[in-house]
Amino acid sequence: MSPIDLRSDTVTRPSEGMRTAMYEAEVGDDVYGEDPTVNRLQERVADRLGKEAALFVPSGTMANQICLHVLTTPGEEVILERGSHVFNYETGAAGLLSGVQLHPLSGTRGRLKPSQVEAAVRPEADVMPRTRVLSIENTANKAGGVVYSLDRVQALAAVAREHDLAVHLDGARLWNAAAALDVTEERLAAPADITWVALSKGLGAPVGSVVAGSAPLIDEARRTRKQFGGGMRQAGLLAAAGLYALDHHRPDLARDHEKARRLANGIAECPPFSIDPAMVDTNIVMFGVPDDTADEVVPHLRDQGVLVKAFGPSTIRATTHRDVSMEGIEQAVDVLHAYADRAPAPTS
Amino acid sequence: MSPIDLRSDTVTRPSEGMRTAMYEAEVGDDVYGEDPTVNRLQERVADRLGKEAALFVPSGTMANQICLHVLTTPGEEVILERGSHVFNYETGAAGLLSGVQLHPLSGTRGRLKPSQVEAAVRPEADVMPRTRVLSIENTANKAGGVVYSLDRVQALAAVAREHDLAVHLDGARLWNAAAALDVTEERLAAPADITWVALSKGLGAPVGSVVAGSAPLIDEARRTRKQFGGGMRQAGLLAAAGLYALDHHRPDLARDHEKARRLANGIAECPPFSIDPAMVDTNIVMFGVPDDTADEVVPHLRDQGVLVKAFGPSTIRATTHRDVSMEGIEQAVDVLHAYADRAPAPTS
Amino acid sequence: MSPIDLRSDTVTRPSEGMRTAMYEAEVGDDVYGEDPTVNRLQERVADRLGKEAALFVPSGTMANQICLHVLTTPGEEVILERGSHVFNYETGAAGLLSGVQLHPLSGTRGRLKPSQVEAAVRPEADVMPRTRVLSIENTANKAGGVVYSLDRVQALAAVAREHDLAVHLDGARLWNAAAALDVTEERLAAPADITWVALSKGLGAPVGSVVAGSAPLIDEARRTRKQFGGGMRQAGLLAAAGLYALDHHRPDLARDHEKARRLANGIAECPPFSIDPAMVDTNIVMFGVPDDTADEVVPHLRDQGVLVKAFGPSTIRATTHRDVSMEGIEQAVDVLHAYADRAPAPTS
Amino acid sequence: MSPIDLRSDTVTRPSEGMRTAMYEAEVGDDVYGEDPTVNRLQERVADRLGKEAALFVPSGTMANQICLHVLTTPGEEVILERGSHVFNYETGAAGLLSGVQLHPLSGTRGRLKPSQVEAAVRPEADVMPRTRVLSIENTANKAGGVVYSLDRVQALAAVAREHDLAVHLDGARLWNAAAALDVTEERLAAPADITWVALSKGLGAPVGSVVAGSAPLIDEARRTRKQFGGGMRQAGLLAAAGLYALDHHRPDLARDHEKARRLANGIAECPPFSIDPAMVDTNIVMFGVPDDTADEVVPHLRDQGVLVKAFGPSTIRATTHRDVSMEGIEQAVDVLHAYADRAPAPTS
Repeated sequence: MSPIDLRSDTVTRPSEGMRTAMYEAEVGDDVYGEDPTVNRLQERVADRLGKEAALFVPSGTMANQICLHVLTTPGEEVILERGSHVFNYETGAAGLLSGVQLHPLSGTRGRLKPSQVEAAVRPEADVMPRTRVLSIENTANKAGGVVYSLDRVQALAAVAREHDLAVHLDGARLWNAAAALDVTEERLAAPADITWVALSKGLGAPVGSVVAGSAPLIDEARRTRKQFGGGMRQAGLLAAAGLYALDHHRPDLARDHEKARRLANGIAECPPFSIDPAMVDTNIVMFGVPDDTADEVVPHLRDQGVLVKAFGPSTIRATTHRDVSMEGIEQAVDVLHAYADRAPAPTS
Repeated sequence: MSPIDLRSDTVTRPSEGMRTAMYEAEVGDDVYGEDPTVNRLQERVADRLGKEAALFVPSGTMANQICLHVLTTPGEEVILERGSHVFNYETGAAGLLSGVQLHPLSGTRGRLKPSQVEAAVRPEADVMPRTRVLSIENTANKAGGVVYSLDRVQALAAVAREHDLAVHLDGARLWNAAAALDVTEERLAAPADITWVALSKGLGAPVGSVVAGSAPLIDEARRTRKQFGGGMRQAGLLAAAGLYALDHHRPDLARDHEKARRLANGIAECPPFSIDPAMVDTNIVMFGVPDDTADEVVPHLRDQGVLVKAFGPSTIRATTHRDVSMEGIEQAVDVLHAYADRAPAPTS
Repeated sequence: MSPIDLRSDTVTRPSEGMRTAMYEAEVGDDVYGEDPTVNRLQERVADRLGKEAALFVPSGTMANQICLHVLTTPGEEVILERGSHVFNYETGAAGLLSGVQLHPLSGTRGRLKPSQVEAAVRPEADVMPRTRVLSIENTANKAGGVVYSLDRVQALAAVAREHDLAVHLDGARLWNAAAALDVTEERLAAPADITWVALSKGLGAPVGSVVAGSAPLIDEARRTRKQFGGGMRQAGLLAAAGLYALDHHRPDLARDHEKARRLANGIAECPPFSIDPAMVDTNIVMFGVPDDTADEVVPHLRDQGVLVKAFGPSTIRATTHRDVSMEGIEQAVDVLHAYADRAPAPTS
Repeated sequence: MSPIDLRSDTVTRPSEGMRTAMYEAEVGDDVYGEDPTVNRLQERVADRLGKEAALFVPSGTMANQICLHVLTTPGEEVILERGSHVFNYETGAAGLLSGVQLHPLSGTRGRLKPSQVEAAVRPEADVMPRTRVLSIENTANKAGGVVYSLDRVQALAAVAREHDLAVHLDGARLWNAAAALDVTEERLAAPADITWVALSKGLGAPVGSVVAGSAPLIDEARRTRKQFGGGMRQAGLLAAAGLYALDHHRPDLARDHEKARRLANGIAECPPFSIDPAMVDTNIVMFGVPDDTADEVVPHLRDQGVLVKAFGPSTIRATTHRDVSMEGIEQAVDVLHAYADRAPAPTS
C-alpha cells in the first residue's frame, strides 16, 4: 500500500489528463517570449487575478523573491508576519538577493493587524531603514492555512498606502483562500501591487508559479527572473499542466478543505493530540502533540503509512490535497487513533 | 545660556586636554599600518578587552557591520533583541552590506534570555536560513541603557556555542556596563568572538570606535574596513583623542550614572511623566509621557533649554554625559517640574 | 513554410520520443529529494562528467551563477574571457547574486592563455580584490563556438591551482566541444572544480541544465538553488527529457557540426559576407557583414524565412541544431546568395 | 635622516598651521548635521566644484563607493578604464556594496576615448546588464597621474548623456588636474553628475574626502554614508584641516608637479631605468625597471632612504608631495643614479 502522504500539497503528481495536455503542448523558446502555451497561461492568470500582466516562474520561492526584488532597493525594510514563508522557508533569500531587512511581527493565528503594521512603520530618519513593503501571506501556511478575510486584506492595504508602502501578496495558496471565502482571487488580489499563485500545490501541476502585477512591474520581474536564473526555454510543457490545472483541478479545492475538516475532527477525538477543528480554515491541519514529542510521533506515523511534518517540537502539520482521498483521510484518522490509544498519558 | 543637551552621549565635545593630545599626536599613514598612535590605541584596547588584536574604525555603525560581515556569509541569520541598534538605527545596513537576515526576539527590558535564543535557532534544513550569530548589545540602548549581567552574557554565549553560533557583542556602551557592574570590560567581553567599544559616546572623544577579536578575525576586519571605505590616513589624530579618553575620561562614567539616577528621581516626582528609577542602570533615562505627546513635549523642553529625544510616541530618552554637570541635571529637573505643573491631567 | 531558425540551438523542440518519455516519467517531490527521475539524471550526468555529485537546475544562467556563488564570497574576483556568457548575457547577475567582481581578459578567438591569466591574478594586498576563480567557457559561444583543446584547459587549470584559484567550467556546449575533439566530457571537465552542461541546447530537451562537482560543493549548490528559487517539485518530467536526450540526441551533435561547416562554406562564397570556414569548430557560425549593417541584414533574412542573430553591428551568428536539416541549411545558403547578389558593393 | 617618502601623496602629515586650525575648531555632532566646521567645509567644496551640495566622508574609497551606490541598482554596469582605482584598489567593493558589474576598457595612457565608450554601451536586452554609469578618473593615478583635458571630459560626458548614462568623476586628484591644466575644478567637474575630491592626498589634510552633486543625490549619499558606517560625530576637527588645506596648501600643487618633472628628468638620465618625462603630467612619476625587477629595486632604494612603490613587475611609482622638498628630490635622483651605476646591464 502506498503511504497517505500529508506532508504537503506539493507532493501532488500530474494526473493522466494533465500528462496528456503536456504531451500535446505547443511550445517555443520562452526566453524569446515565443512559447505560445506560456503566453496563454500568463494571460489567463493575469486575467484571473485582475492584473495587467503575468510571468511564469519555476518556483514559489522565486515568485516571492522576484516580488520583493522589484519593489525594493537594498537596505529597505519589509514588514511581514513572523510565521511567513519568506521569513522562515526561503533560506534567507531576501537578504541575499535583495539586501532587504525583514521586520517580522507576531500576528494572531498568523494574521497581521492594521494597527500593528502602522506601529511598525519607521519614521523618516537617516539612521532608520525605509519601510517599503507590507508582505501578506494568504493563506498563512505556518499558522495552519489560516485565511485573511477580504476586509482584513483591504484594511492592511489601506494602512500600507497611507505610509507609501507597496503591498506584496504571497498567494501560494490564494486558491484555497478564495475557495474558503467563496470570493474570486481577483478581489483578494486587488489590494496588492504584486502577487503570485502556485500551480504546483493544491492545483496539482508539477512545476511552477505565476507572478502578476502592473505591466512595468512584470517587465522588471522578467529581467529579475533572468538574473535569478529562472528563464526557461520550452516551458510551455509546464505551462500546459498549469492551464489544465486551472480548468480541471481548481474546482476540487473545496473538497480538500472538507477532507481537512474531517481529519481535524478525527484528531480532536484522539487525546493526547490537541486541535480545535474550528481553527481549520482550508487544507492545512496543525495539531499539537504532548511533551515536545513531534520528532517521535512523525516517524511512528510514517511506519504506519501516514506521512506528516513536524512544524516545531510539539506541532505537526498535515496537509490534504487531491492525491489523498476521503478514504485515505479515514485511514489516517484510524492510524492516529491507534497511536493515541497506545500513547502514554502526558507526563506533565 | 547654552542648552542642556541630553539627546545623546555622542554630543560630547573634546576637552581642552584632549585637544592638546590631538595637537601633539605623532601620525603616519594608517592604510600602510604606519600610524604609531593608531597602533598604540589598537594595542591598548585589544589588551583592555582581552583580545588578540584590534582595529580603529570611524563609527559604531561601521564597527557593528564589520563584526557581522566577518562572522557571516549572505543568507545566514543573526539573532538579536528587537530593540537592538543593529535592527533599528543602522539604516538596514546588515542586509545591504552582508546580505544577512536579522531575527529579532523580544527580550525583557531589552535583554535576551538563553531559552528564547535556544528556541530561535533554526534546525538544519535546506529551506531554512542558517543561524550563524548571536548578537548582544550591552548596555541595551533602546531599552534604557540596561545592563546585561556577566552571568547572563555567559549563559547566552553557552547556548550560542552549543549551536555553533558566533557571539557578537555590541559594546557601544560596554564602558558603562563595566562601570555599573564594577567588573572589567575584559570579563564582559570574554564570551564574545568579536566586540567593539565606542570612544565617541560617554568617553567624549570626537570620532571613532575600536573592534577587537582574534588576530584572523581582525585581519579580515581590516580588509572589510577597506571595502566599506573606513580606511583613514593620518588617523592618529583621532586615536590620540581615544587614548586620552581612556586615561582621563573613563573613570568619570560612574558619575554620569549618578546624574542619571538624580534625573530619574526628579522625573519620578513629576507626574504625568512616568518612570521607575530602579530601572535606570547606567546613563540613559527613558521616561513615559501621557497620550502619545512625545512629539509635543520634546520641542517644549527644547524651548526651555533642555534637549531630549523622542523614542516612540509616548517615550522620551535623556542621556547624561560628561558635558552636562549635576547642576545641569538639576536645571533640567526644574524645567520638567515646570512642564508637569502646567500640563493638563492625562485624559485617559 | 516554417522558418529555418538558426538563432540558437535553444529553439529546439522536444521530439516525439522525448515527449513520450516525459509522459511516462515517474515523478516525486524533488524539494524532498524524492523524484526518482531527477535522481537518475543527476547520477547519470555526475558519472558522465566524472564528478561525485550533480544537481538539476532550470537554466544555464542559474547553473553558472550557482557555480560562482559556491566558489566565492562577495568582493572576490573572477577571471574570465571578455566574450564569456557570464560577462555578457546574464544581466549582471554575478554582481547581484554573489557580489563578485568580474575581471575580463581579451583572449584569442575567445580563448584565454595561461600567461595572461597568470598576469591578471592579483597580488595579496588589502586594497586589492582577492582573485578567487578562473572561469572557462568551452565552447566559447560569442567567439563562434570555439573549442578549447584539452591541453589548453589543463594548462589554464594548472595556473589556477598554482595561485589557489578554483576552476569553473561553463559547459553549456561542452557536448559540442567533446564531439569536436572526440574526447569524453569527463576528460574535458576533469580540471574543473565545478562545471555544468545544458540539456536544452544542442541536446534538444525543453528545459534544464545539470551542475556537477564534489559532494560538498553540490550540497552547497542545493542550498543556493533553493535561495535563487530554482527548487522545483515534480521536475522528473523535465529530467526524463534530459535522460532521453543523452541516450538519443547526444550522438547527433557531430552532424550539427557538419551542417555548420556546410553553412560556412556557403557563406564564404557570398561576398560581401565574410567568414573563414576554418574558424568554425562546432555548431556556431559567426560571419561578417559590411558597413555595420547587421541590423538591416537580420530582418531581411527573416523576411526570406531564415532566422539569425546580430552579435554586434557587423557580425551575425547562425547556429545549427537538430531541428534544422541539411536541406534547411542549403536553403539558408540560397537565401544568403540571393541577398549577396542584390547587395550593393561595400562603400568603404 | 628621515626617508624621502615618495610612495604616495597620502603620506603627507598635517602642518603646524593645520594642527592649530584643528585645535581651535568649533565642533558639533555631525550625525545631527550640527557640526559647524563640517558644514562650512561642505559648502565651500560644493561651491568650488559648482555643485548644489556636498558631504564629508572618511576616505576616497568611501567617496567612490557612495557615488556608484547612489547612481546604480544591483546588476547594472559601470564603464571605466582598466587602470582605474575603483577596479584595482578598492578590494572589490563595487560588487560587494552595490552589486554592480564593472566593465573595464583599456584606454590610452589611462584615458578612455568617447568612441570606445560608445561601443561598450549595451543594447537594451533582458539578457544584458544595463549600462548605467561612465566613471572617469582625473587624474588617472595608475597610468601615472595622467590628466584628462576639459575637451575630453566633455566629449565623454556627451556620449554618456546620449545613452542615458550618469557620469561619475573620481576626483581624488582633481586638484592636480586643475593645476596642470590651469582651469578651475568647477569646469572640470561640470560634466559630472557626482564627483569628489580628496583632502588627504596632495592637499595634506590627515583624513577625508568630500563628495559633491545635486541636492537629491547628496541626500541619498548621506543615507548611504550612514549605511556604510561613514557617519562621524565631531568631524569638525578633520574638516578644519580640510579648510586649512584649501586655503594654504592648494596653491602649492604646481610646485609638486615641478618636483615630479625634475625627478622624471633625473630618471631619464639613469638607464636602465626608463621613462619619457613628457608623459609626466602632474605629481606622479611612473618609470620602468628592467627584467621584472621592481620587487628588488624597491627594497634597495628603501635601504638608501628613498621610498617608492612597485606598480607591476617592471614598473615603479614615485609620487611627489608637499612633505618632500626639491632638495629631497635631488637626493632621490642621486640614489637612483647610484643604483643605475651599479646595476648590471639588462640581460635581454
